[in-house]
Amino acid sequence: MQTDPSRLAPMANAIRALSMDAVQQANSGHPGMPMGMADVATVLYSQFLKFDPAAPKWADRDRFVLSAGHGSMLIYSLLHLTGYAAPTMADIRNFRQLHSVCAGHPENAELPGVECTTGPLGQGLAMAVGMAMAERHLNAVFGDDLVDHKTWVIAGDGCLMEGINHEAIGLAGVNKLGRLNVLWDDNNITIDGDTSLSTCEDILARFAATGWHTVRCDGHDFADIARALAEAEADPRPSLVACKTVIGKGAPNKQGGHSVHGAPLGADEIAAAREYLGWTAAPFEVPADILADWRALGAKGAAARAEWEARLAASPARGEFEGRMAGTAALASPALESYIAGLVAAPQKVATRKASEMALGPLTEQLPHLLGGSADLTGSNLTKTKFTVPFGADNYAGRHVYYGIREFGMAAAMNGMALHGGVVPYGGTFLVFSDYCRNAIRMSALQHAQVVYVLTHDSIGLGEDGPTHQPVEHVMSMRMIPNLNVYRPADVIETAECWALALETTGTPSVLALSRQNLPQLRGAGDEGWTGAANRSAKGAYRLKAADAPRAVVLVATGSEVEIALATAAALEADGIGADVVSMPCAELFVAQDAAYRADVLPADVLKVSIEAGVTMGWERFTGLDGLNIGIDSFGASAPADQLYSHFGISADAIVPQIKAKLGR
Amino acid sequence: MQTDPSRLAPMANAIRALSMDAVQQANSGHPGMPMGMADVATVLYSQFLKFDPAAPKWADRDRFVLSAGHGSMLIYSLLHLTGYAAPTMADIRNFRQLHSVCAGHPENAELPGVECTTGPLGQGLAMAVGMAMAERHLNAVFGDDLVDHKTWVIAGDGCLMEGINHEAIGLAGVNKLGRLNVLWDDNNITIDGDTSLSTCEDILARFAATGWHTVRCDGHDFADIARALAEAEADPRPSLVACKTVIGKGAPNKQGGHSVHGAPLGADEIAAAREYLGWTAAPFEVPADILADWRALGAKGAAARAEWEARLAASPARGEFEGRMAGTAALASPALESYIAGLVAAPQKVATRKASEMALGPLTEQLPHLLGGSADLTGSNLTKTKFTVPFGADNYAGRHVYYGIREFGMAAAMNGMALHGGVVPYGGTFLVFSDYCRNAIRMSALQHAQVVYVLTHDSIGLGEDGPTHQPVEHVMSMRMIPNLNVYRPADVIETAECWALALETTGTPSVLALSRQNLPQLRGAGDEGWTGAANRSAKGAYRLKAADAPRAVVLVATGSEVEIALATAAALEADGIGADVVSMPCAELFVAQDAAYRADVLPADVLKVSIEAGVTMGWERFTGLDGLNIGIDSFGASAPADQLYSHFGISADAIVPQIKAKLGR
Repeated sequence: MQTDPSRLAPMANAIRALSMDAVQQANSGHPGMPMGMADVATVLYSQFLKFDPAAPKWADRDRFVLSAGHGSMLIYSLLHLTGYAAPTMADIRNFRQLHSVCAGHPENAELPGVECTTGPLGQGLAMAVGMAMAERHLNAVFGDDLVDHKTWVIAGDGCLMEGINHEAIGLAGVNKLGRLNVLWDDNNITIDGDTSLSTCEDILARFAATGWHTVRCDGHDFADIARALAEAEADPRPSLVACKTVIGKGAPNKQGGHSVHGAPLGADEIAAAREYLGWTAAPFEVPADILADWRALGAKGAAARAEWEARLAASPARGEFEGRMAGTAALASPALESYIAGLVAAPQKVATRKASEMALGPLTEQLPHLLGGSADLTGSNLTKTKFTVPFGADNYAGRHVYYGIREFGMAAAMNGMALHGGVVPYGGTFLVFSDYCRNAIRMSALQHAQVVYVLTHDSIGLGEDGPTHQPVEHVMSMRMIPNLNVYRPADVIETAECWALALETTGTPSVLALSRQNLPQLRGAGDEGWTGAANRSAKGAYRLKAADAPRAVVLVATGSEVEIALATAAALEADGIGADVVSMPCAELFVAQDAAYRADVLPADVLKVSIEAGVTMGWERFTGLDGLNIGIDSFGASAPADQLYSHFGISADAIVPQIKAKLGR
Repeated sequence: MQTDPSRLAPMANAIRALSMDAVQQANSGHPGMPMGMADVATVLYSQFLKFDPAAPKWADRDRFVLSAGHGSMLIYSLLHLTGYAAPTMADIRNFRQLHSVCAGHPENAELPGVECTTGPLGQGLAMAVGMAMAERHLNAVFGDDLVDHKTWVIAGDGCLMEGINHEAIGLAGVNKLGRLNVLWDDNNITIDGDTSLSTCEDILARFAATGWHTVRCDGHDFADIARALAEAEADPRPSLVACKTVIGKGAPNKQGGHSVHGAPLGADEIAAAREYLGWTAAPFEVPADILADWRALGAKGAAARAEWEARLAASPARGEFEGRMAGTAALASPALESYIAGLVAAPQKVATRKASEMALGPLTEQLPHLLGGSADLTGSNLTKTKFTVPFGADNYAGRHVYYGIREFGMAAAMNGMALHGGVVPYGGTFLVFSDYCRNAIRMSALQHAQVVYVLTHDSIGLGEDGPTHQPVEHVMSMRMIPNLNVYRPADVIETAECWALALETTGTPSVLALSRQNLPQLRGAGDEGWTGAANRSAKGAYRLKAADAPRAVVLVATGSEVEIALATAAALEADGIGADVVSMPCAELFVAQDAAYRADVLPADVLKVSIEAGVTMGWERFTGLDGLNIGIDSFGASAPADQLYSHFGISADAIVPQIKAKLGR
């Protein structure tokens, strides 16, 4: 049942009216994009998008990503008009107000139907690439009956100017993601003015250069839009549809200029727009016939979903599919039990990046959810196992993505995969290059996306590559991102424990900061018969070694410096100074423990010394101002790792005298 | 005087030999790129590059940027062979060792002739774009006699896959930087393997799509290389020269594969390479005739430099030119004196972003060095003044760059401008999008590049745009980057003071974190007759208000929260509780003060309370564990700013009871 073409114009005008009225009422927001793209969006929803407002989480729905997230009233209008339970009209009236689900930029955690949180430009497009990769992967595993959907994106000039878009479209091109279609709001306007102020690019030529199909249309001609979308849908390549639009279309005096981008139209212009559009309804009212058309359109998806549900119910793969969608939380620790038992029996001195690879062995063997990769550092990050063969257009069932030199694109794609569901993505780069993808890591956290960042070469311990490659501030600065767990394991067993936690905390992304250099196995005693319940890293920090002599100091360290803390403690004990050693693989989890546990591990009345090969600021939270903070508050240097540790004073020899001086002993 | 073409092959082999021997001796490093690009580099240095080893800082030299910085032995070889004072052969023997100027990746602060520090991929190219912009700007001001040089880049596949390259080449294209030439090491290899693993891009088509000239050559055919470089030099557009090369060329069994990229060749392969290349000299020895050829080539630049020196000596613009190259350090405070006097006389309640614009008025009027811009948020960041007209191909003398939606490209370009000299760049985006350019900010700091980042909308105070746009962790996390001063001024006068400091600290980049919302003027009393010597922000923190009642608490706040600290203090004083208020516009500068000053401002024996609308971790450095830390340890929300401040408890009403409870009063 096609929507009557003559009804499309008033339906699109409903989007325009809601958008301009909501922005006016909030006295802030962005009317230009929703008004400019209303016609395109109406065609997309009426003729192409597969969705069922009654089941926003239907696994086989098409994904729609509003990459130009500032145009949030477009998606709020669409969700309301097509009949999703939310937003209600009351929500829309409360656009941009405290506790409204209609936030300034669309947030996936607030509103089913919003597939991902957008606003930081370019990332929506890159997340959509990840969604399309996840779709092809699951299709390869489960077949067309269960997984057969498309990914649609609306992107603006900003999304296509950000560097991340280059990485994203490159990934889409090489992986031949033909079911990804990007509708570009080609309006020649950015915030500063005409696009010619800042670019002379032939965008279609650029997309074509990386394996994309491109097509143009008049973004205000319904038939032409439908023609172009049909062409995009049919082409086997990913498609860019350049929709030539007028920004703020419908506001007769302001449309086409940059003043309409990000500010309310004002009462006069809204009145003029009502007249121009022939829109006589009051603000926040949609005439019944127009709403009925939208709701009829929304109801169309129910049949397709029912057929899919029937196929799923009848499928021999049903259990496997449901297990895939249910995620890894219950599976990770059991998968590691025999592996850790082996480590207890035969200790291993390996770099924690190697320990990560070892843990990934049983995990990738037993958890088909895991879809790994690396930004061109596979052999350094050690993220590929024998169970993860390459993912690509010739084998979408593969589970290792060669992301290329695209850290930001990789991170955002992983966000898209995680939000798509059915896969748990992990990917590697050097820790220092977390800077390149930092906002995508933040967006993992904000979106509750379960992504695991495998960030190796985590300190001066990487040695000769020097300060450009040596993280100093990164571990501490990522601890400051809300809802992100930063793990820095000390040995091969802690690394496995941190992997288990990362796969069990489904609403929280994880960073694993891993060493290049080999580290001795520090654990084993007490770990016989290890299970998830015995995961000592789960409390974030724990006493690894209790003082022998009367306790005078508590050394708290992370990662590669726990070995140094133990050496420091041994030297102190030799002089009769009792020293606890606390390993703190995850500060966030430790802070979340109750006060009694925290006080037992880090008692108030004892000298506390932090040891971490990074900036010291932040460690005062655990040591107080009367403690000692051993670290590096400058950039690193190029030299062999052991020399650097000596040079920067991260050694028992350098630390012991400072502790003795502090203790007056 | 042309170098004899028959001599080019042995000259290039000298680069190959030094590179493979140095990597072997260090037992780490990257031989593949220097060996692959030795022929191209030899042609560049012998026939195209304008340089004088005797004067590495000659203002009108061509700039050469090794964007693929891992190939550092290429530039170390070139500098040594052409006769720069450093590196010596002893330095090269100490490649990648502690204190060697031959660091793992080339560092500008270590070695004259290294124009910028490279290694983080893509940024060298983007910095080169900034250098080329600075060159055109100074050329427009001073003419061909004084400024007339080119910028040459060697970039690898990694540089051209990183998203930042898209931003950089877009900037170069729209600004028609015809004197920028990029030599692409087109070897079909990345670390993970063949480029086809991760890309299907037609790179030349992409460059052409954004206004570049492109040409190909055989990177091992000297005549063909020279033909292509000549064509690139002649074309009025920026040029990409695709140099088809064999990675590791000269290592007969390993060349052309990814194993040669980043590891020593090994003794056997080095022996095989010596035979293959006909290179009989011992390691770290260059045959006298070959060295003589290189040194003769290096000596050629002296004449051009002498002519330039003569032109400068005779130029009426000499004083102005030398002043431009000398920078802003001595000029900033005097330029602000009468402006600040006006503020003392007539206080202003404005957002600190507006205060920044106001300070930029006299600064841009009086300091022609300043070259501003914004990443498509000019009207929000308020970085443009009436003295800074747009920069572009039609007016390179302009001083406001419409960078487009390219935060990372902007930041790296500003690094290039600052390192070029003659301009002091500043540029704006929203503070939250410092994430997009974070590694370039780090590279400003590592390179001692005087760049001023104008980062507005610095907290939940931006209001309705919501958590995607609200920085929470950013101010604190940037405080952790070494050699970066993060300023968060509290009012219109502090903003001017912070601008003065940013322009006076020539070896340190600055971040200005600025409010969207209006803030009352808190200063004025005591600022009559303000001069740079009276800059109260220069010590990083100072007592803005002393307690009236006996001091029971010290409130330390930054930026928009200083107003809240004053309101809190007023409420406490009304109850007889004495409260100091300390404004801390720059934590880094405060930490650098002597202990007596720090103890006077933040005494040990008084309750200390930090108030900042961001994460609290880190503030324990100033308050201890027995203080109070008022802040936001979660993501923000979408709502009007005043409601958010109440919601998150950043208000006197919410803070006063906590202080009273702590004091037991």
